[in-house]
Amino acid sequence: MRVGFIGLGVMGANMARHLANAGQLTTIWNRTRATADELGQALGVPVADSPAALAKSCDVIITCVSADKDILEMIDAIAPELTDQHTVIDTSTVGADTAEIIGERLAKTKTAFLDAPLTGGSEGAEAGTLVVMVGGDEAVLDAMRPALEPFSSRISYFGPVGNGQRAKAVNQVIVAGIVQAVSDGLSFAAASGLDTDELLPVLIGGAAGSRLLERRGARLLENDFAPGFKLALHHKDLLLCQRLLKGLDVSLPTVEMTIKHYERLMADGYGEEDITALYRLKRALFETGNQRSL
Amino acid sequence: MRVGFIGLGVMGANMARHLANAGQLTTIWNRTRATADELGQALGVPVADSPAALAKSCDVIITCVSADKDILEMIDAIAPELTDQHTVIDTSTVGADTAEIIGERLAKTKTAFLDAPLTGGSEGAEAGTLVVMVGGDEAVLDAMRPALEPFSSRISYFGPVGNGQRAKAVNQVIVAGIVQAVSDGLSFAAASGLDTDELLPVLIGGAAGSRLLERRGARLLENDFAPGFKLALHHKDLLLCQRLLKGLDVSLPTVEMTIKHYERLMADGYGEEDITALYRLKRALFETGNQRSL
Repeated sequence: MRVGFIGLGVMGANMARHLANAGQLTTIWNRTRATADELGQALGVPVADSPAALAKSCDVIITCVSADKDILEMIDAIAPELTDQHTVIDTSTVGADTAEIIGERLAKTKTAFLDAPLTGGSEGAEAGTLVVMVGGDEAVLDAMRPALEPFSSRISYFGPVGNGQRAKAVNQVIVAGIVQAVSDGLSFAAASGLDTDELLPVLIGGAAGSRLLERRGARLLENDFAPGFKLALHHKDLLLCQRLLKGLDVSLPTVEMTIKHYERLMADGYGEEDITALYRLKRALFETGNQRSL
Repeated sequence: MRVGFIGLGVMGANMARHLANAGQLTTIWNRTRATADELGQALGVPVADSPAALAKSCDVIITCVSADKDILEMIDAIAPELTDQHTVIDTSTVGADTAEIIGERLAKTKTAFLDAPLTGGSEGAEAGTLVVMVGGDEAVLDAMRPALEPFSSRISYFGPVGNGQRAKAVNQVIVAGIVQAVSDGLSFAAASGLDTDELLPVLIGGAAGSRLLERRGARLLENDFAPGFKLALHHKDLLLCQRLLKGLDVSLPTVEMTIKHYERLMADGYGEEDITALYRLKRALFETGNQRSL
């Protein structure tokens, strides 16, 4: 199995490193060439001259890019080289519809395709403990496990192409609700003059407990919003959720509200902060005491 | 220390049992006499003829009732017997303002008062692992620990009378957000045709993870809404939160929305179910596919 990796951002670079350490990485490519050169040198892996050249020298192509547009452009770039000997695995978080379009397009050359978005964030990528949510043919997934296991702690299969993205969307909808809950509660606590050091363990230990509160509650209260999971990325993901929900003719108020809140924070320059920067908005609400401001 | 216990519902009966087992229970009283007689017999503890009689034979009076009105009536009933030798500890979840009114009233007879609402639910009461959030004089709390420890795993102090209730309110606001998040996510997953058995551990293990999802996610998906934490009680608590928030001139959309959703479910006869019965409403939303129905 010759694995090529396209898209060496924070996530991709760490995933590529774990693949290289497992002896499972043949070549890499990145839009910014310098990034690829530096990583290639560090890992002892050659950098391909183009996505097409990477496709020519590999049979498994893993992509990790930012948006629907990016993955569609990448598929355009590699398509001429793809055959029935290739498998493409897209680990980006994009629309389920985009995944389905790619799956159909690659079917023309009998190229296998898996949509395989991730949870676990930059920490999970660094530790090689990502969770992979996979849509596509299950036999293809089973054959591809050696290309996924080096950077993951769990690989879950959800059925046809697009369902990996659907599973990821459910995750992101719940995360929106939880970041709202945590921000509401802790801003309420601070505005009530409660000792939050005393309160946090009470909340964490009971029905109000969540992983987000555990990991970020104390930092949020100190106005430390270093990512973590970037607000602008969660915003992008929630737009994908909104699109999927619209397809089901449903609007979820928490999703709509969180998108609106994030847009306000992004306009104020906080898009690169952790999602818990939502607390900024809630604290301002309690400070201004305006019943209509959120 | 002679401890009397008033209010022997599911919570109170279990708390009284733990006190009796620790040799810390002198007498009990309950509005429905038969309940008190039965428990008194089981625990080998005498039943007082009235709240006033209980107050006369004890120096610590623990109350565990349902609503503001109930605790105010109870204070009326015991007030004539209270002296500077008494301490009253109210473990009910009531308004912070109600706790403050009681504190001021008891100050007239120099009777010590702690507001001490609980989290951990009926399971916590049964296991004796409740968390107690205390407002009042810290020296009084320290003297009262032997009367609280038998049924609790943690006793947290939050400052003046009323702050126990404020801490509990924060907890309940977060629980509202979490039950919304879990219900949104799992109804979205089911409507998307995802394998929820495969999805649940993914969600629980990542940023979407919460205690509620862990404890109730699988049961909710099987439409098992046996309490747990009764929806009608959480509704009552959220009205208290709403009152506190209004005092801060703030309205939190998630709190408002959850109150509205619970009222619809209570009107349909689901008030005695677990809070996760919110899933009923969300599932109906996805089934009818009406963008305006929630």
